[in-house]
Amino acid sequence: MEPNSLSALHTEACKLADSCLRFGRIKKSPSRLANRLLDARLPLFHVSRSKHTSTWETNMKKTVLGSLSAIVLATSLNAFAMDAEEAIEFRQAGYKFMAWNMAKIKAMAIDGDMEWNAQQVQAAANSIAATANSGMGALFIPGTEQDVGNTKTRVKPEMFTDIEGVTEVGMAFHTAATELAAAAETGDKAAVAKAFAATGESCKGCHDKFRMD
Amino acid sequence: MEPNSLSALHTEACKLADSCLRFGRIKKSPSRLANRLLDARLPLFHVSRSKHTSTWETNMKKTVLGSLSAIVLATSLNAFAMDAEEAIEFRQAGYKFMAWNMAKIKAMAIDGDMEWNAQQVQAAANSIAATANSGMGALFIPGTEQDVGNTKTRVKPEMFTDIEGVTEVGMAFHTAATELAAAAETGDKAAVAKAFAATGESCKGCHDKFRMD
Repeated sequence: MEPNSLSALHTEACKLADSCLRFGRIKKSPSRLANRLLDARLPLFHVSRSKHTSTWETNMKKTVLGSLSAIVLATSLNAFAMDAEEAIEFRQAGYKFMAWNMAKIKAMAIDGDMEWNAQQVQAAANSIAATANSGMGALFIPGTEQDVGNTKTRVKPEMFTDIEGVTEVGMAFHTAATELAAAAETGDKAAVAKAFAATGESCKGCHDKFRMD
Repeated sequence: MEPNSLSALHTEACKLADSCLRFGRIKKSPSRLANRLLDARLPLFHVSRSKHTSTWETNMKKTVLGSLSAIVLATSLNAFAMDAEEAIEFRQAGYKFMAWNMAKIKAMAIDGDMEWNAQQVQAAANSIAATANSGMGALFIPGTEQDVGNTKTRVKPEMFTDIEGVTEVGMAFHTAATELAAAAETGDKAAVAKAFAATGESCKGCHDKFRMD
């Protein structure tokens, strides 16, 4: 493939997703995954334009897809000198902080270990949704498929190759986190409990597929 | 002080803030800080009721104050069995994830190392604001004033005693993070740059006062 074609591929990918994170610049040939990404994103992006899709959903899908493009297209040269070790630490921080917020919601909406507090539930759900929507896919840069120095990762290598699988679990997570925040906004405990369970399932869906035990 | 008075103090504190996190139950005498907390929170809470104060500001202040009550009133028995080590890890995760989001905004709005992308800036700012609003004060439970096992903390002991100081830096941070999210929503780069600088200052304000070098 000629450089011009690669450049066109990159331009098209960014245009289609309209949210390419541009953490790096294409300095060498992207792998054949770029083609698979385009194949995977096209139908999804078209779906997000349907009249039944909200702006939030559209943005969410663009973020997921933008994140995926960062996985595939980012080089090891990141714009603000984030190295592989930092990338792993940042993503683990995001997951850990979500775990705390999930635990609070569980304690209030499911287990009853904490007294129900609608404001606290909403704050926790907003934090989860905002984290889910922050483009964490950009933290799965090349070089982070395995441990780096003393920084361990449980990610499976498949996370970096199974674009369709990542898209599926990513979308499920974004949808669930968004619905959890919406449920929390209503202040309805039963709705929160239901949305919490769905969010937990979406977490598990990714862990089962892309995280080592 | 009799248990009944302590109980009344706790009840009043929760009622005033209307957002007491209730991570623990009062099982032993809280220190005299509980009185100082009440003294410190009253004028602040009244300010938040003024007609010039938005609902968001009110909620933000309630969250800060609720967090403070958790610092002072929480016992080592947490509702979902969060121990001191986990509490330190959770709060550090929150700060680290904010650092990533701050770095992205800096690269796009200040340094120009990354191409400006209003959607990404907004996602990053929303994540920072939601984290700031998630009641992280509850993670400063007794026992976390110092290293726990292999988990190191740079917090100064004053964070657990200087309630007025914590209130001040906490409010400054909540305000700055909220304004950063609002600026990001407009998509205006100059406004984001200004709000980013203010947020950075608010981080520094706390670090200078309550974090060891």
